[in-house]
Amino acid sequence: MAKKPLILVTNDDGYHAPGIRALTEVAQEFGRVLKIAPNKPQSGMGHAITINSTLRIDKMPTEGDYQGYECSGTPVDCVKMALDVLLDETPDLVISGINHGSNASINVIYSGTMSAALEGYIEGVPSIGFSLLDHSVDADFEPAKHFVRKVISMVLAQPKMNFCLNVNIPKLPLEMIQGIKFCRQAHAKWQEEFDKRKDPMGNDYYWLTGHFVPFEDHKEDTDLYALQNGYVSIVPISFDFTNYSTLEAIKEWTT
Amino acid sequence: MAKKPLILVTNDDGYHAPGIRALTEVAQEFGRVLKIAPNKPQSGMGHAITINSTLRIDKMPTEGDYQGYECSGTPVDCVKMALDVLLDETPDLVISGINHGSNASINVIYSGTMSAALEGYIEGVPSIGFSLLDHSVDADFEPAKHFVRKVISMVLAQPKMNFCLNVNIPKLPLEMIQGIKFCRQAHAKWQEEFDKRKDPMGNDYYWLTGHFVPFEDHKEDTDLYALQNGYVSIVPISFDFTNYSTLEAIKEWTT
Repeated sequence: MAKKPLILVTNDDGYHAPGIRALTEVAQEFGRVLKIAPNKPQSGMGHAITINSTLRIDKMPTEGDYQGYECSGTPVDCVKMALDVLLDETPDLVISGINHGSNASINVIYSGTMSAALEGYIEGVPSIGFSLLDHSVDADFEPAKHFVRKVISMVLAQPKMNFCLNVNIPKLPLEMIQGIKFCRQAHAKWQEEFDKRKDPMGNDYYWLTGHFVPFEDHKEDTDLYALQNGYVSIVPISFDFTNYSTLEAIKEWTT
Repeated sequence: MAKKPLILVTNDDGYHAPGIRALTEVAQEFGRVLKIAPNKPQSGMGHAITINSTLRIDKMPTEGDYQGYECSGTPVDCVKMALDVLLDETPDLVISGINHGSNASINVIYSGTMSAALEGYIEGVPSIGFSLLDHSVDADFEPAKHFVRKVISMVLAQPKMNFCLNVNIPKLPLEMIQGIKFCRQAHAKWQEEFDKRKDPMGNDYYWLTGHFVPFEDHKEDTDLYALQNGYVSIVPISFDFTNYSTLEAIKEWTT
């Protein structure tokens, strides 16, 4: 009998976040699970890695039929350490999340959740990042789990493909979710507004805040449009950052 | 008379790195300069931003005809704070570097230097990241400065375009550099090898090490090929991470 698939589960909200608990539960339905997650929240870490400092991994108390580890590093460090230090075989799948909050559109670029998934893809392992559009600590992950199950099934049915999927799930009861749409990343940006305060010594400090500025949420092929219309959005992402249309344009420049 | 261009200069190696000093010198030849850089080395920070902690900016002693600030955050934080807190006008150009070490190929994804440039581009400002293929603290930046000058001239001659360029400069004397090539990002990965050690208490810890595995350095349209053959490589990069070829393929999946 063939071995059950080996699934590496990680996130950026930290080992004890409800989202990774939900993701681990679903992963166990499909195969063997290794869970490794940061020992503190690592939201907004993008594709950061730890190169000027040391890393630790700590085995966690057994909670179910899987091994769990906390890692002192970033989400990308978690994936690298799992592949190089903890595992003797290449996993069949890397899944990251379920993130507390959207990673649609430009959020993908700042996201530790998606960077962990992208690192899996770079390493040759099909990878999926899941995010639920709900920041609340009491968010209901049950509708999300339904779609996590569905997407993992779809991906495991394509054993010869390699890719990285950015899956975002609207904050809706299950019966209100319209289905799944494959999309491109909508163009948008964050308009930052730094909140300036004074510390007790009278010195200035700042908190990063801002608001999201969508440029194409009306375009039907985008992830933002899908989510606004009650669909789960799936955007396949790339680690080739080349801007090919700009490349065509600038080739004309005299050097 | 038209105002001189306003150039925002940043990096990931920190305010006092020789690379940003070289970059600032060249920038001053072209216009007004605002320098803002992390107050500690931030290599490998990718597109990280500071969202769970506070940020500070400190005005630095005047060294020349420009204003300089240290920022407690990441390279991307530097760009965001300059645009929102320090500047009353939108800069004409964001330049980042000169990085000590290559950001060609897959390195772009881990690079704080390139993420700072990419953030400028997201904000609508043409941006360039410069890297020299020399990690030495005594690296000779003079040949690099020649090409920084050349690329800034080219970019300022295109005031209506928006883009982000990843410029890598080989470690060669000026007369040995063959010219500039516009390229795509070569496919490659880092094969990590964690160096496991014991701390004085007998507990394990790790250092991330690894070696670079190029997959297409023989392909003439790639940045790795250009660099190996003595050229400066320029790859325009994108913040649309959508993998369009995968999107076409997975649209066929039954949902």
